[in-house]
Amino acid sequence: MLKECWENVQKAAPLVHNITNYVTVNDVANVLLACGGSPIMSDEPEDVEDITSICGGLNINIGTLCKSSIEGMFRAGKKANELGHPVLLDPVGAGASKLRTDTANRLVEEVKFAVIRGNISEIKTIANGSGTTKGVDADVADAVMEENLPSAVQFAKNLAERLDTVIAITGAIDIVADKDTAYVIRNGRPEMGRITGTGCQLSGLCTAYVVANPGHTLEAAATAVTLMGVAGEIGWSHMHALDGNSTYRNRIIDAICHMDGDILESWAKIEKM
Amino acid sequence: MLKECWENVQKAAPLVHNITNYVTVNDVANVLLACGGSPIMSDEPEDVEDITSICGGLNINIGTLCKSSIEGMFRAGKKANELGHPVLLDPVGAGASKLRTDTANRLVEEVKFAVIRGNISEIKTIANGSGTTKGVDADVADAVMEENLPSAVQFAKNLAERLDTVIAITGAIDIVADKDTAYVIRNGRPEMGRITGTGCQLSGLCTAYVVANPGHTLEAAATAVTLMGVAGEIGWSHMHALDGNSTYRNRIIDAICHMDGDILESWAKIEKM
Amino acid sequence: MLKECWENVQKAAPLVHNITNYVTVNDVANVLLACGGSPIMSDEPEDVEDITSICGGLNINIGTLCKSSIEGMFRAGKKANELGHPVLLDPVGAGASKLRTDTANRLVEEVKFAVIRGNISEIKTIANGSGTTKGVDADVADAVMEENLPSAVQFAKNLAERLDTVIAITGAIDIVADKDTAYVIRNGRPEMGRITGTGCQLSGLCTAYVVANPGHTLEAAATAVTLMGVAGEIGWSHMHALDGNSTYRNRIIDAICHMDGDILESWAKIEKM
Repeated sequence: MLKECWENVQKAAPLVHNITNYVTVNDVANVLLACGGSPIMSDEPEDVEDITSICGGLNINIGTLCKSSIEGMFRAGKKANELGHPVLLDPVGAGASKLRTDTANRLVEEVKFAVIRGNISEIKTIANGSGTTKGVDADVADAVMEENLPSAVQFAKNLAERLDTVIAITGAIDIVADKDTAYVIRNGRPEMGRITGTGCQLSGLCTAYVVANPGHTLEAAATAVTLMGVAGEIGWSHMHALDGNSTYRNRIIDAICHMDGDILESWAKIEKM
Repeated sequence: MLKECWENVQKAAPLVHNITNYVTVNDVANVLLACGGSPIMSDEPEDVEDITSICGGLNINIGTLCKSSIEGMFRAGKKANELGHPVLLDPVGAGASKLRTDTANRLVEEVKFAVIRGNISEIKTIANGSGTTKGVDADVADAVMEENLPSAVQFAKNLAERLDTVIAITGAIDIVADKDTAYVIRNGRPEMGRITGTGCQLSGLCTAYVVANPGHTLEAAATAVTLMGVAGEIGWSHMHALDGNSTYRNRIIDAICHMDGDILESWAKIEKM
Repeated sequence: MLKECWENVQKAAPLVHNITNYVTVNDVANVLLACGGSPIMSDEPEDVEDITSICGGLNINIGTLCKSSIEGMFRAGKKANELGHPVLLDPVGAGASKLRTDTANRLVEEVKFAVIRGNISEIKTIANGSGTTKGVDADVADAVMEENLPSAVQFAKNLAERLDTVIAITGAIDIVADKDTAYVIRNGRPEMGRITGTGCQLSGLCTAYVVANPGHTLEAAATAVTLMGVAGEIGWSHMHALDGNSTYRNRIIDAICHMDGDILESWAKIEKM
């Protein structure tokens, strides 16, 4: 599965439309190029329908929303739906402010998402319609750990069924689920949390993978999540004594650039549940 | 002092709300993560009050202001004041345009700042209500040097008294002053001027330090300024022959990531005046 | 020519006003600092006239336009024209959406550009008033190759004459032309296409070079294009086995930081046609 999904991205070179935050946008663009895809960014309401029409899929990230980009998200999302392009939602900070929570909820109501990817606090906010996210990081109390993994997997499957989408919850342990099947992924490194935007980058990757693997959204999303975790581990293995989070950021994107399907499979810690 | 302030940031892991420019925002986020804090960015007027409420402090940087983000600055600043959160102003380019000068002046009138940090030209603009800044860099004619240091220190103390704040003037020699006491810091490297955003990064750090050291704003700000200078020196010491400003940017953030209180104290060149 | 143009940038340290996209803006700022210039970013309509007045030239890049920044482009462009400052247009994605195509066309009508720099698909869109650009990358069908080079050179000269500007078409082979003379440049590496924003960076460089070489716009633009290509080759020669596109990005900017006129001349593959 992993190798096949990876190869399909190399063949398809998917063009991904991103409406994303201005904090991590450059890394999202470079990681899309690193993985074999191609990025285009546009959030102006009058521009987004044309742009999304020439792309294969749409990545909506609410990390730094403003009134104009919110309108852009709805217009682009609906257009992508019309065209049958997969759309991903990254509800950054849902639960941390009314505007973010409301925007995420309204997006889920009005746009059909192929994948919703966030940390556990954000996904719980989506599930409950409200939340108490502490900033853009997951609340420690919510964290997915071995002890609560079965219930977290069931939560993901239930939400996937209710919203008819794939749910990707990322953290120390990642869960990618549709209503019937979940993949649990134990790749990645805790130090990735000290780099801004690894989640945003993953959302970009995930969109590219879903575009390039039509009919296999669950597998594609799980592969992208595995890829990001593996790249975090490989990137870490290339760190020198004095390297810190800024160099680590480069090392992860470099590792995605040098990935191949066999490397990905040999590092993967993924199981079906 | 330096070590204690540094340790308090590690313990508190302060969450900092940043309304900052889109040029250097990614580096501001990564430097906050490197120093042991946590960043969140939001400038939409309808989002900022909620976001600043869950944070410990607010960093306002006018580097690329627009009408909407200006409104966000006022709303967030007033809310943070209400909640007793420290607020920092980085008046990027004050003196270079009417809009920047006016916005900085209005912010100083309507929002209570714990710290105002800028280069000498920007701080003079704040002091005079007008200025003639050449772009976003300090005017050479204004530069703080050994010859004019006593008068610059007095200027900083006077302004700190008048505005009831801590004034941080950074350049080849840095001054951090309240009405009674100034710290003069001689760390840093001239090559830092060839990286965009080292000042913006410092403003992020400074906010985190002030949040984590309540009741010690002056010492916290002086520690942050020292930290940035020391990181500039340590980062430089890790440069190879072919490395340039882009790698130096990574090296500085990496050095902050690897800092500890003892290293900071051993490299510091700080004196009280 | 190359050495002289390079030296003039070191002497003049040109201050460049950039209205550019939020994806690659940080790299544009760092590359301007690397080359010996100085950047300032501002797109708010009420700010841009003041900012452009204190600069030497203006770089307009439509990579992520919004209504407000479009207004900023026109106001800044007209002000720069009034002041006799050179203005460069980078029509990112012209042909990919109606808004981008229309904005680029209107800018060309209402603002006098010293240089228009883009990939072949974007420049064809400018020439035809419409286009079918695939995202932000050039269409393969349009690519300038040895076979169609003479006709591409003639196309560039004709367009330069019609619009009374210098046309820079960049790709595997670069063409920089005014109505009479074209420079053909064969520097650079295909791997540069896997880094976001090398084109945007070049537009920043190009503006700095034109500012610092008054009366020699064609030569200055050709030198900047050569510089970017040479930096791409030198940066590549410094790559290690595990380095990918993220490190390559740093290596290219580092190479510009370490450039000198003799190195530039010895690596250049430039011919007059």
